[in-house]
Amino acid sequence: MARTSERVVDVTVTPVAFRDHPLLNTVGVHEPYALRTIVEITTEGGVSGVGETYGGTVHLERLRRAAAELTGMDVWSLKDLTARTTRALGADTAGGDGMSGMVTGSSTVDRIMAPFDVACLDIQGKIVGRPVSDLLGGAVRPAVPYSAYLFYKWAGHPGEEDDDWGAALDPAGLVDQARRMIETYGFSSIKLKGGVFPPDEEIAAVRALHGAFPDLPLRLDPNAAWSTETSLYVARELDGILQYLEDPTEGLGGMAAVAGRTPTPLATNMCVVSFDDLAPAVAQGAVSIVLSDHHFWGGLRRCGQLSAICEAFGLGMSMHSNSHLGISLAAMTHLAAATPRLTYACDTHWPWKRPDEDVVDTGALRFSEGSVAVPTAPGLGVTLDRDALARLHRQYLDCGLRDRDDTGYMRRFDPSFPAKTPRW
Amino acid sequence: MARTSERVVDVTVTPVAFRDHPLLNTVGVHEPYALRTIVEITTEGGVSGVGETYGGTVHLERLRRAAAELTGMDVWSLKDLTARTTRALGADTAGGDGMSGMVTGSSTVDRIMAPFDVACLDIQGKIVGRPVSDLLGGAVRPAVPYSAYLFYKWAGHPGEEDDDWGAALDPAGLVDQARRMIETYGFSSIKLKGGVFPPDEEIAAVRALHGAFPDLPLRLDPNAAWSTETSLYVARELDGILQYLEDPTEGLGGMAAVAGRTPTPLATNMCVVSFDDLAPAVAQGAVSIVLSDHHFWGGLRRCGQLSAICEAFGLGMSMHSNSHLGISLAAMTHLAAATPRLTYACDTHWPWKRPDEDVVDTGALRFSEGSVAVPTAPGLGVTLDRDALARLHRQYLDCGLRDRDDTGYMRRFDPSFPAKTPRW
Ligand SMILES: [Mg+2]
Ligand SMILES: [Mg+2]
Repeated sequence: MARTSERVVDVTVTPVAFRDHPLLNTVGVHEPYALRTIVEITTEGGVSGVGETYGGTVHLERLRRAAAELTGMDVWSLKDLTARTTRALGADTAGGDGMSGMVTGSSTVDRIMAPFDVACLDIQGKIVGRPVSDLLGGAVRPAVPYSAYLFYKWAGHPGEEDDDWGAALDPAGLVDQARRMIETYGFSSIKLKGGVFPPDEEIAAVRALHGAFPDLPLRLDPNAAWSTETSLYVARELDGILQYLEDPTEGLGGMAAVAGRTPTPLATNMCVVSFDDLAPAVAQGAVSIVLSDHHFWGGLRRCGQLSAICEAFGLGMSMHSNSHLGISLAAMTHLAAATPRLTYACDTHWPWKRPDEDVVDTGALRFSEGSVAVPTAPGLGVTLDRDALARLHRQYLDCGLRDRDDTGYMRRFDPSFPAKTPRW
Repeated sequence: MARTSERVVDVTVTPVAFRDHPLLNTVGVHEPYALRTIVEITTEGGVSGVGETYGGTVHLERLRRAAAELTGMDVWSLKDLTARTTRALGADTAGGDGMSGMVTGSSTVDRIMAPFDVACLDIQGKIVGRPVSDLLGGAVRPAVPYSAYLFYKWAGHPGEEDDDWGAALDPAGLVDQARRMIETYGFSSIKLKGGVFPPDEEIAAVRALHGAFPDLPLRLDPNAAWSTETSLYVARELDGILQYLEDPTEGLGGMAAVAGRTPTPLATNMCVVSFDDLAPAVAQGAVSIVLSDHHFWGGLRRCGQLSAICEAFGLGMSMHSNSHLGISLAAMTHLAAATPRLTYACDTHWPWKRPDEDVVDTGALRFSEGSVAVPTAPGLGVTLDRDALARLHRQYLDCGLRDRDDTGYMRRFDPSFPAKTPRW
């Protein structure tokens, strides 16, 4: 029986936009603004908690519909949250992934409930006086290592001045990018977003990175841009250099065909994106590492379930990232800290976000030697900055972007940009 | 960072014994006393919580060793509990199942940490002011249905007066037993412990029960007493009558051989008893229903992980029981309430326990229409009765039993009692 004070009286859903760089991927290029959505839940007792998810009109509308259903919810009850989210969505469960076509098979209920789950845990932690990691079973590490997330990129958005990262369109450009990122943050793992240039160019880039940082584990993620044969070719060429190869090709069947013929571990955040994908993935031996992402897997508590499954079935775990703000970084850090199975450095787009743009005070989220110390304050350990939230909401209203469309943006500059899969 | 007040300052481990009936199973017969172990954890802030597990010298010694390691533990940290239990056990992880040979492959770490996990959740609930079911994600049902658990039995322990249940050694005896149990408790599912008499007699018993209670789901559990051929014979004979057949034969291989040739769902608490068993069970298609048991699966939070795995891999769930007291009934009820996947009535030995023997006030655990309402008080919702605990501990000291030995007890009366598997 929930005490009245721990029932939800108010939920706000606020779309925001923050500046992004022209980062290249296999479906196009990042637009000038990244879209996110911030949720805030307040209980009758006056305790509030926050969550963050991606943006997009369909997703946003669903979040608002779910939010309206949460009044009276017990903030302790994951079951209640699941039931109310399911009820709010009804039969409306197709599309709305907001990922420019790159993560499409995930569960809509899980995606919608995720930021509210984070907000509920933030509230629970404040009530109990404990960090969220404790509510997830306790931190097994005091700090969470993240990887340097390298992107091929243009020097700046067309029509704007070059950004301060400059261009990275060849091996030398990526090595420079890596060097700066590692010097600034101390990362000790490197991930390259691939699928942008023909495979031989990306092989050369990975080799150049390996030459420049011989002791750092390297990963390559072409977002399923390759055929199985191309995937096997790249795996062979980079044998012994890659820690893992992420989503070289499309679908469980394609991944299984590659996995059966290479010793390189395959990781995914594309073909295993929901609980329904796990049994077929295991049966087919499609992947050996699942990249969890609480935004897609139903929140932090559901990711704990994913971790138990990975442990029981011998799957490794890493963590996926999209462009995100500080609430998500805090949530990712609590989750990763409380996930013993997660033995790889997590992905994060954090270095690509301007330090002066966020909706929370980011002081509790500093990087040291590539890791973020797990916040120890009650809840998530970050505080919503309402002025900053208003600014980024204003920016959302003003920027005109409503749905992520990396391909459409690319085609404004390269009308012949291909949509085919695999590209190579 | 745990607040000092939520760190463990004291842990007690108390073996107890309570009167049991001469219930027959395939390895022998229940002795005059059932052995259990009660743990109590107290925090620096003076909050205490309780847990219950089975008995036995090896298990008891391990529990005491683990208890000594828990001083200073953060009661919120499952990870800390796991680490301390693992450290306390060291390489001592073989045997000690305490189940008279019927559940042998479970994880020793999980079995030792389980009662402490329950006690920690009891404390957390008291601190937060919420029932344990809330801490497990929230109850999805207000009351948990249990099944009538029928046993073949002698009229009384040899050399003692007949007990008030009397003998049940044939179909008519079991129907009488079922009638009384259902009238008293309101159960609407029936389970028969089999493996005692030749299969045709047990088939006749199930048919008699079906005739007397045509609307109630029926289960039969011979504890792997049969060959695969015998299992298939029984499944055929009882086709359309059994809700599920529990552990007809031994091992994943045997169960898979049966499962592949019968439409009757197979359930188990013998061949899938730890997280390590899940991947091979799924790969072989050995079972379709897992009987969870928090005493073997590492406690309530670990059982939540089991539930997620069962959901992802399409396995049904029911709940196993050994002879137990009120702390375990409370824990089982909170767990089952918070487990959506658990769609079958749970097993319980509760009717076989004298109402005047327990270590808690059982007022919060009354049966109505076969179900126990989920306690709503903070924590487990049951209160340790220290006088009763002292009485049952005294009974433990006096009764002389230290390890469950159904086979040895049977052989005192029938020296030729067979040990072979399968018996039929
Ligand atoms: Mg990826
Ligand atoms: Mg059984």
